[in-house]
Amino acid sequence: MTRDASPAAPWRATILTLYPEMFPGHLGLSLAGDALARGAWSLEARNIRDHGIGRHRAVDDTPAGGGAGMVLRCDVLAAAIDAACAPDDPRPRLLMSPRGRPLTQARVRALSEGPGVVVVCGRFEGVDERVIAGRGLEEVSIGDYILSGGEPAALVVLDACVRLLPGTMGKHASGVEESFESGGLEYPHYTRPREWEGREIPEVLTGGNHAAIARWRAAESARLTRERRPDLIG
Amino acid sequence: MTRDASPAAPWRATILTLYPEMFPGHLGLSLAGDALARGAWSLEARNIRDHGIGRHRAVDDTPAGGGAGMVLRCDVLAAAIDAACAPDDPRPRLLMSPRGRPLTQARVRALSEGPGVVVVCGRFEGVDERVIAGRGLEEVSIGDYILSGGEPAALVVLDACVRLLPGTMGKHASGVEESFESGGLEYPHYTRPREWEGREIPEVLTGGNHAAIARWRAAESARLTRERRPDLIG
Repeated sequence: MTRDASPAAPWRATILTLYPEMFPGHLGLSLAGDALARGAWSLEARNIRDHGIGRHRAVDDTPAGGGAGMVLRCDVLAAAIDAACAPDDPRPRLLMSPRGRPLTQARVRALSEGPGVVVVCGRFEGVDERVIAGRGLEEVSIGDYILSGGEPAALVVLDACVRLLPGTMGKHASGVEESFESGGLEYPHYTRPREWEGREIPEVLTGGNHAAIARWRAAESARLTRERRPDLIG
Repeated sequence: MTRDASPAAPWRATILTLYPEMFPGHLGLSLAGDALARGAWSLEARNIRDHGIGRHRAVDDTPAGGGAGMVLRCDVLAAAIDAACAPDDPRPRLLMSPRGRPLTQARVRALSEGPGVVVVCGRFEGVDERVIAGRGLEEVSIGDYILSGGEPAALVVLDACVRLLPGTMGKHASGVEESFESGGLEYPHYTRPREWEGREIPEVLTGGNHAAIARWRAAESARLTRERRPDLIG
């Protein structure tokens, strides 16, 4: 699964997980799956347990200082990381964690423009803190909620990145992100039929006045952002 | 797939999607998968295209007023919703959308304590605005980034909810969310070995003074929250 590291090499994702069978998951279908099959990106899911300790391949232990849950061992995780990527591997190493920096579209775009990602998926209570500094992991959160593990979050990061790779979206490329990246929420969309259950498409959208349509959309985007996400403004 | 609506009935998820084969995905594995197999929750993925129009089962059309992408038709989506849930179905109807209200752990908990969810997954540029009001959809966002569609987001919502269902996590239940729900980030975790690559477990954690350990953890949690997520404080 190794690939040429030249700039033209496909975007490359390596996942470290205790559930490699969760990948590619939904990324094996639809446009992301087509792009994967075409070799526009690659995905390798590696089992952390291959580096577990002893006959039972133990990967976790009880938390120092007591408490509920189990903690992923630093030595086991470091061995898995070292086996998956060389010290000079230029890819960012993400650790999916609700403690991490919130993922943004700007970060997604930067990741998609790089060589790929290494993503570590935690399970249990968390990972031993020392491996984060010891292996230069960047903690990333997809939102303020708790998941069963890092895998659903890793799939979200990959989905967001892969759709930005050249050629992945094709004719499905949309204007949503232009709106979003400019800091506002998307304006409302309408399509046929013109009237549905007594609800009509706003007249401005069917009038053919493109300047008026652009003004209406900008005003709606501003209104929705103000009403729903004032935190996105200034 | 219909179930008794009594309070003791399992938590029930219905997904409306153009890619039903993306479900259960990772939710069919690990603890969520065990709980699904046991009947502790149920998952039904319905294809919106079953309600498409004409011989080609069209589900989308060009946006009124022009622009890139395609818009999911309100009549098609309404027919799919009406076929999936009766008007008196008590479950919240979520529409996964970057325009929606950001998902929080408090909302996840409320959803997990209810009868289940109906989740509509958009694709393309968006859905016709009229069906949102016409069918009482609640727009929910899992974060400030753009996905290929609502499916990865729906899987995240379900994962977050299912792990809170009684008996799902079992002995894996953790203290992460207590910390998180109280508004702070989780303190650092450590486990064996005591020393790794010259890095030691903080002495307080191995000293056996439980009051000191609790103080250290609270202070670390406060420090991390202050440094990384001042927005979570007050």
